[in-house]
Formats: sequence, C-alpha cells, structure tokens
Amino acid sequence: MILEHALLPVVPGREADFEAAFAEAKTIIAGMPGFIDLRLSRSIETPNDYLLLVQWESVEAHETGFRGSPEYGRWRELLHRFYEPFPVVEHFAEVARAG
Amino acid sequence: MILEHALLPVVPGREADFEAAFAEAKTIIAGMPGFIDLRLSRSIETPNDYLLLVQWESVEAHETGFRGSPEYGRWRELLHRFYEPFPVVEHFAEVARAG
Repeated sequence: MILEHALLPVVPGREADFEAAFAEAKTIIAGMPGFIDLRLSRSIETPNDYLLLVQWESVEAHETGFRGSPEYGRWRELLHRFYEPFPVVEHFAEVARAG
Repeated sequence: MILEHALLPVVPGREADFEAAFAEAKTIIAGMPGFIDLRLSRSIETPNDYLLLVQWESVEAHETGFRGSPEYGRWRELLHRFYEPFPVVEHFAEVARAG
C-alpha cells in the first residue's frame, strides 16, 4: 500500500468551483482498480491550498492504471484547470504510526 | 479535527538515525492532550524526504498544547537536528473523502 501526496494550489477565488468539480472527480478515481481511499483537505493558513492524499495498492495502480485509463481524461478535464502552478505528485511508503 | 502536515527533508545518509529517533519521539507526541493519531511515511521518489501527518482535535492542541509543553523540548532535541532545510508545518481541514 502506498500514499499518493499532492499539494494543490488552486487559483484564488476558484475554491468553491474546485470543490464542486472534485465531488464529481472523486467518484471517477474511487472506481479505479487498486484505489483504497482518499482524503481532500484545505489549508487553514493558506485557504487556496488543498492537500490530496490517496491510498493505492501500488504506485503502478496510480501511475499506469489510473493515468493510463480512459477515465483519467475526465479527471484532468475536471480538475487541472484550477491549479496554478501545476502540482508535484509524490508517493510515500509508511514507516511508523501511532494512535 | 485537523490534520498537521509537514514534509521533512532529512539530511541524506541520516535516514536510519532519524527513523530510530522518531520511534522514541512518537511516544512523546502520542501522549499529548488532543492527539488523535500520526503516520510517518517515506518518499519513494526522494528517499530522504518524509511526510508527517498528525491528526489533532484542534490547531490549539498542536500549537499551544504540544509546542508549549515541557515534552516539546525532548521532541525538538530528538528530531530537529535531522532537517535541512527546516520544514514548513501547515494545518488542514477535511473537505471530502472517498473509499
């Protein structure tokens, strides 16, 4: 299991539109093979910054499976227009937990 | 409930020492009032970068409670020497979830 991490800088003033588009987009990603769960959160200090965390069974499920799928076109169409600059996506593997 | 987020750039070559120090540090933070849970993960693309995610009952539990506590001195002593540059900490509030 791996964690996809992206800090999403949304164009100021477009936050409500972004959240509405995300409500549709999340149903696309949630149907992909290897998807486990996701959480979208909004920064308290910088309210146009969002944090996307997606758990996948593997990096390949995200990078090859999802990004190579026909559904990815709709995801991109819904969301990519809100980002400035375009976000960096990284993958993380858990090393410790508590609580 | 809020999510504390920090990307921790660990000095290359110090990763094993950092993880060992974190094993002690996590018991400190896990005992603080308002702490819910934490996860430490390691970047797959940039293996000296770590992602710390801590759920707190409120921003105040983290910023006033934990950072103002005597225990925070030990946390800082255990961990801060590993970071270069020093990380930015932000807080996020959940807006959507799936899965």
